[in-house]
Amino acid sequence: MKFGHFDDKAKEYVITTPHTPQPWINYLGSNDFFSLISNTCGGYSFYKDAKLLRITRYRYNNIPVDSNGKYYYINDDGVIWNPGTMPSGTETDTYECRHGLGYSRFHSSKNNLEADLLAFVPVDAACEINCLTLKNNSDVAKNVSLFSYVEFCLWNAVDDSTNFQRNLSIGEVEVHGSTIYHKTEYRERRRHYSFFTVNAPVQNFDTSRDEFLGAGNGNAFPEAVRRKKCSNSIASGWYPIAAHQIDLTLAPGEEKTFVFMLGYCENPADNKWEAPNVIRKAPAKALIERFDTAEKAMAAFAELKTYWETLLARFAVTSSNEHVDRMANIWNQYQCMVTFNMSRSASYYESGTGRGMGFRDSCQDLLGFVHLIPERARERIIDIASTQFPDGSAYHQYQPLTKQGNLDVGSGFNDDPLWLIAAVSAYLKETGDYGILDEPVPFDCKKGSEVPLFEHLNKSFHYTATHLGPHKLPLIGRADWNDCLNLNCFSSEPGESFQTTGPSEGPVAESVFIAAMFVQYGKEFKEICLRTGHEDLAKEAESAVADMYQAVLDAGWDGEWFLRAYDSQSAKVGSKECEEGKIYIEPQGFCVMAEIGKEEGLAEKALDSVHKHLETKYGIMILQPAYTRYHLELGEISSYPPGYKENAGIFCHNNPWISIAEAVLGRGDLAFDVYRKICPSYIEEISDVHRTEPYIYSQMVAGADAARFGEAKNSWLTGTAAWTFVNLSQALLGIQPEYDGLAVNPCLPKNFGGLKIKRRYRDAEYYIDIRKPDGVEKGVAWMEVDGKKIAGNQIPLIPGKKEYHVTVQMG
Amino acid sequence: MKFGHFDDKAKEYVITTPHTPQPWINYLGSNDFFSLISNTCGGYSFYKDAKLLRITRYRYNNIPVDSNGKYYYINDDGVIWNPGTMPSGTETDTYECRHGLGYSRFHSSKNNLEADLLAFVPVDAACEINCLTLKNNSDVAKNVSLFSYVEFCLWNAVDDSTNFQRNLSIGEVEVHGSTIYHKTEYRERRRHYSFFTVNAPVQNFDTSRDEFLGAGNGNAFPEAVRRKKCSNSIASGWYPIAAHQIDLTLAPGEEKTFVFMLGYCENPADNKWEAPNVIRKAPAKALIERFDTAEKAMAAFAELKTYWETLLARFAVTSSNEHVDRMANIWNQYQCMVTFNMSRSASYYESGTGRGMGFRDSCQDLLGFVHLIPERARERIIDIASTQFPDGSAYHQYQPLTKQGNLDVGSGFNDDPLWLIAAVSAYLKETGDYGILDEPVPFDCKKGSEVPLFEHLNKSFHYTATHLGPHKLPLIGRADWNDCLNLNCFSSEPGESFQTTGPSEGPVAESVFIAAMFVQYGKEFKEICLRTGHEDLAKEAESAVADMYQAVLDAGWDGEWFLRAYDSQSAKVGSKECEEGKIYIEPQGFCVMAEIGKEEGLAEKALDSVHKHLETKYGIMILQPAYTRYHLELGEISSYPPGYKENAGIFCHNNPWISIAEAVLGRGDLAFDVYRKICPSYIEEISDVHRTEPYIYSQMVAGADAARFGEAKNSWLTGTAAWTFVNLSQALLGIQPEYDGLAVNPCLPKNFGGLKIKRRYRDAEYYIDIRKPDGVEKGVAWMEVDGKKIAGNQIPLIPGKKEYHVTVQMG
Repeated sequence: MKFGHFDDKAKEYVITTPHTPQPWINYLGSNDFFSLISNTCGGYSFYKDAKLLRITRYRYNNIPVDSNGKYYYINDDGVIWNPGTMPSGTETDTYECRHGLGYSRFHSSKNNLEADLLAFVPVDAACEINCLTLKNNSDVAKNVSLFSYVEFCLWNAVDDSTNFQRNLSIGEVEVHGSTIYHKTEYRERRRHYSFFTVNAPVQNFDTSRDEFLGAGNGNAFPEAVRRKKCSNSIASGWYPIAAHQIDLTLAPGEEKTFVFMLGYCENPADNKWEAPNVIRKAPAKALIERFDTAEKAMAAFAELKTYWETLLARFAVTSSNEHVDRMANIWNQYQCMVTFNMSRSASYYESGTGRGMGFRDSCQDLLGFVHLIPERARERIIDIASTQFPDGSAYHQYQPLTKQGNLDVGSGFNDDPLWLIAAVSAYLKETGDYGILDEPVPFDCKKGSEVPLFEHLNKSFHYTATHLGPHKLPLIGRADWNDCLNLNCFSSEPGESFQTTGPSEGPVAESVFIAAMFVQYGKEFKEICLRTGHEDLAKEAESAVADMYQAVLDAGWDGEWFLRAYDSQSAKVGSKECEEGKIYIEPQGFCVMAEIGKEEGLAEKALDSVHKHLETKYGIMILQPAYTRYHLELGEISSYPPGYKENAGIFCHNNPWISIAEAVLGRGDLAFDVYRKICPSYIEEISDVHRTEPYIYSQMVAGADAARFGEAKNSWLTGTAAWTFVNLSQALLGIQPEYDGLAVNPCLPKNFGGLKIKRRYRDAEYYIDIRKPDGVEKGVAWMEVDGKKIAGNQIPLIPGKKEYHVTVQMG
Repeated sequence: MKFGHFDDKAKEYVITTPHTPQPWINYLGSNDFFSLISNTCGGYSFYKDAKLLRITRYRYNNIPVDSNGKYYYINDDGVIWNPGTMPSGTETDTYECRHGLGYSRFHSSKNNLEADLLAFVPVDAACEINCLTLKNNSDVAKNVSLFSYVEFCLWNAVDDSTNFQRNLSIGEVEVHGSTIYHKTEYRERRRHYSFFTVNAPVQNFDTSRDEFLGAGNGNAFPEAVRRKKCSNSIASGWYPIAAHQIDLTLAPGEEKTFVFMLGYCENPADNKWEAPNVIRKAPAKALIERFDTAEKAMAAFAELKTYWETLLARFAVTSSNEHVDRMANIWNQYQCMVTFNMSRSASYYESGTGRGMGFRDSCQDLLGFVHLIPERARERIIDIASTQFPDGSAYHQYQPLTKQGNLDVGSGFNDDPLWLIAAVSAYLKETGDYGILDEPVPFDCKKGSEVPLFEHLNKSFHYTATHLGPHKLPLIGRADWNDCLNLNCFSSEPGESFQTTGPSEGPVAESVFIAAMFVQYGKEFKEICLRTGHEDLAKEAESAVADMYQAVLDAGWDGEWFLRAYDSQSAKVGSKECEEGKIYIEPQGFCVMAEIGKEEGLAEKALDSVHKHLETKYGIMILQPAYTRYHLELGEISSYPPGYKENAGIFCHNNPWISIAEAVLGRGDLAFDVYRKICPSYIEEISDVHRTEPYIYSQMVAGADAARFGEAKNSWLTGTAAWTFVNLSQALLGIQPEYDGLAVNPCLPKNFGGLKIKRRYRDAEYYIDIRKPDGVEKGVAWMEVDGKKIAGNQIPLIPGKKEYHVTVQMG
């Protein structure tokens, strides 16, 4: 069952009912100012950091679900409704929500009054613009009262939802004309404020929530809207809001457009005030002036469209498969941008108050983003590496506003360091910018500790190389990629962190997964060493990688698949010897990606075991059999009910690893089948089962053991986006950035058909025509560049050349 | 304007409309299991610790306000309503909420169907009982569907409201008969569960919130209630709830009663399961069996009533002033019990997730509680002292479940140690139990560090005595009683704690307030030393107190009032020399309480200045003039808008200090006037202005500088309760426990009239008849005990004597 459809031409998903199984959301904002917006206009805004600079208030886990946002109420002759239908819940005569790239558009009508609401964040301004057009389609004049409504968050989202003793006394606003300024805490330490304005005179306004809603009411039918009159309230403590009242008359056929703007401004510390207790409004006025007519607003919207057209044009495929084209050209790249911007910080499942940016997460997100805006990837790499410790270990998370490592979670996730190598090698392959390796980067953000970025990679590599266990496999620490496999914790008390209670490392528990990472990214490190004149290091790396390869063969193979780990007692995890959790997905995917056991025939066996034991119609489960009881020695993984999350859920993030691994083996049908099963566009039809947005990936789909098999959770912010784009663009469609140029090596189903790809790479455009005879899954028979055959499948880089026309014959 | 009235006979406040200015709440529970319940049935339950063992889910700061609770829905021929009117909001034909001592009772009717709902927590059981009676007052039979509804919290209230990535996958329940068990996280580390049951067969049930409410709905009109059918859903993740469906037919005049119970159970760690994944239900069954008929439930209710009658009988006054009698005999004592139980942890303004028990708070709360259940006060003293550090300083807060000090807030509030002396001296005066001083009590909860409690007092005293500044006044540390006066912080960045950023002590900033405390409680320490054979220490204490007294005279007097402090630059705080914040309330109250400057004529001058500069019609403000801008050197106090909280709000907590101080000077009219202005019963008439519950104290009333002058905030959990009871019972009514017996020394208005007091003290009953000629404010002319005149005004203790009949003639 579907609740909408793709509009590929407009690059939009069109939702045709407000009653989606979950709120289906979109992200607005490209740089600093971000908003989440649902298909019923729920959501919130923040500047840079969803925890520390939350601009509007949202209530997670509320009923009705998703019950705060930027709302417009229309009172048309006593009938109160909203363009997105919420919060009044009034059913409209027509309804449509179009989620596009960085904007959302709502089109609805009631009693021949038509509303069109366009919400977007301009590319280069710290504000959200809402263009609202009302049109009278009836044959009589209409007198309509229009009300806007946003509820301010008192900045720090954690304090805002806990420290009521203080909060209820500190709310402050100023009102000037149609602009309502929110200035809570500005009197002391803040020098930023927000404002909500409209480009029209207002009859009345409200800034006190209780005055606008009516004390004790919800926001479905505010008292001010019912009685068609705001009371010009000035909030003093309690709950500051901004609400405008605009009374308008529309002749038959007439339409009027209003431009609302929610903005964020900062003042210099020494120039905060216009007068005692009057905030300096110059920056707000300048911002308002930029977008204070419909024309200016629509120009900004056109600029946003161009921004996205330009970005997405960096990778464009034309094939006979609409799902592939749609995901590759629009939605997968779009989600990669969002995950890059947000890491795991703010979604409808991540409250934006806890995790900040993940070290491992952000490094992986970058893999799917680096081709879009390499300059921002570069900056991010420096930010991430700056939180690393001098011994190569890393803070697991850092706060986006301060860029400081997060002490609460700390360090000891032993896969973290290697992801930095993954990110940097992807950046180098995309850009050829070896200069980044010379950038001075501190440890733990401490001034004076800077060393070249290359040294950080070296530290990363050697951290793993020198932290080995009894089987010469890497020590797992608090956890590796699977945060819930906690082999050094043994927590028996509620409330303890499964990850940070107990020793951070432990001298015995080892990870086969990190071993595979080490082989994979150790090879990249070696390449980087070679290309930067560190030959001794390269040799050392090569030898360490070879040793690790052997260690995996010696101690990491279970007969039919790769082991997952050894626990703190050196007992096997993910082995046929185990009572539960006999086979895990991660080492199968990553070992084969690293080509471990490919020659020895183990790789194929491992993937066959994945299909045999872990595959379902909705994707590949993380492990089997599910843990039916808590295993003290394994930790959080066994705390989940069977079929959910890391306990045998379909953890989408590592499904592409299997797909890539299949591509390594050249099994195109199998590789694509894995891709297809979790691909949003493919499973749009079962939106009633899947329940999350059908245009983007979710973190997890409930596995076969679960009561709710097939139901997805935690949509949007997931490493799945980046890894699937790596899989789709590089492993399946075969466009592979290498250190010395673009290689082409597709792996596709036998009957996929030919395809054309346009790729922007190192300041040149590549037009690649891939011819694929039926029956072929992988292999390049020959390749022509600008009409000339070349050896191999890598397009030679020619300095200054702006266009490459490439023909690839598979076979 | 009033929204109800007192029923003194029933010891209830009767609320006659659901539309109170704020939710007006009550507390259920005496020992371990607690519920908050509002006049529209909102609220939540927890076991021992509102953060760590939250049983039902509540959403703070929500709209509609107070929108979760234990709800009963009645569908009577399509009309859906609730006994407390919420959450449907359906107006009933009649409505009444009676908040009593440990119970709340709702009586309402709609369309001739009458509902009576009684909610209470039995004295000695970990459950809340809800007796619901439905009666058909019409002359035709009614077919009614009754639904219950509670939403479970996933135990840790902080995780519950933030960690959705995990939470949405872990919810688990079991259902057996009419009992719904909530067992989330039991599979791993928990060995406790909760349950919701009813003593009748149910037609259907629901445990999945979305199934019961309908996806996307609020809880006003659940889908199951509308269609009169629950769907027997078994929650798997998402939002576990418990809802029963009972269909019943009521003949004309017929009534039926149902007993619902929300219970909490623990199992031994090694006996958690009946079968794999089936929780052991024996404790639940035993608990259910205790209250599974209306008769059993009403017997438990009668026991609760007796419990409270017995407690309150320990202090009972009969005067000609109904306000005094009502507050002293019922509500002030009741609030003292609640503050003792909760400290500042869980109210409708304290989310129960942050502060735990305060060291200073709990010590003060105990002053108003110790006469009720001295045994529990004793236990609390040991708990508090156990968190003290070996140098005498103290954790500022500790967690009630674990009883461990809270590291987040840490130490350095330099008044904390002295409050321990205050609490212990009050305990000794009440009980004469010097044995407590020999109890072994650890430091920082560390086993092996135990020393006798007396040593903790000694450490407390010497901590202050040895941490003096340039004027020989005590160093203030992070803050003293006024958490917002931060003289060692200088925070200029948002998000920093005003208290814990910066040095904890600082070698310069001093507190006149702590100096007064030192004089006051130093005298008590000396007394304790004398009575326990520590004569040298007593001498030392006496001399240190004398030095401090002199230091206050030398450096703490500003000419017309006492200074508040010296800041980190030794500049005066609370002085005529200051631009803002010239006079503070705290040192005036505490210095005079400690009799500093009484002989020298300064005390009277100081109090006169209070009346002149700080008094308003709604009470005495904390300082004047309000700070109009942020003072970096003063900290949080200047961050509040003028008139709110510590920035010139009427902080009720220290109003009784002024009243007591006036009593010290013998000015009965003035003392009582201060008492009267913030007394709930006196200001019931202005409930529309005051807005919080008219039967209990709030922390703060907005001051004269505020837009909302007279509006109260943070009701219930405030030191005001204890201090007002100390003021009323000891300073005004004059019943003063001393080390060697009960003294009588009233200080009352000239025209107050005589009064009779019954007091239980050290296992005896005291019947005290106070005769007071008009015009007298203070002074005891003579006193008779059992018909015999005695010297002085202290009743000699006679071992074994069970009754004292005392006549006191003022004059």
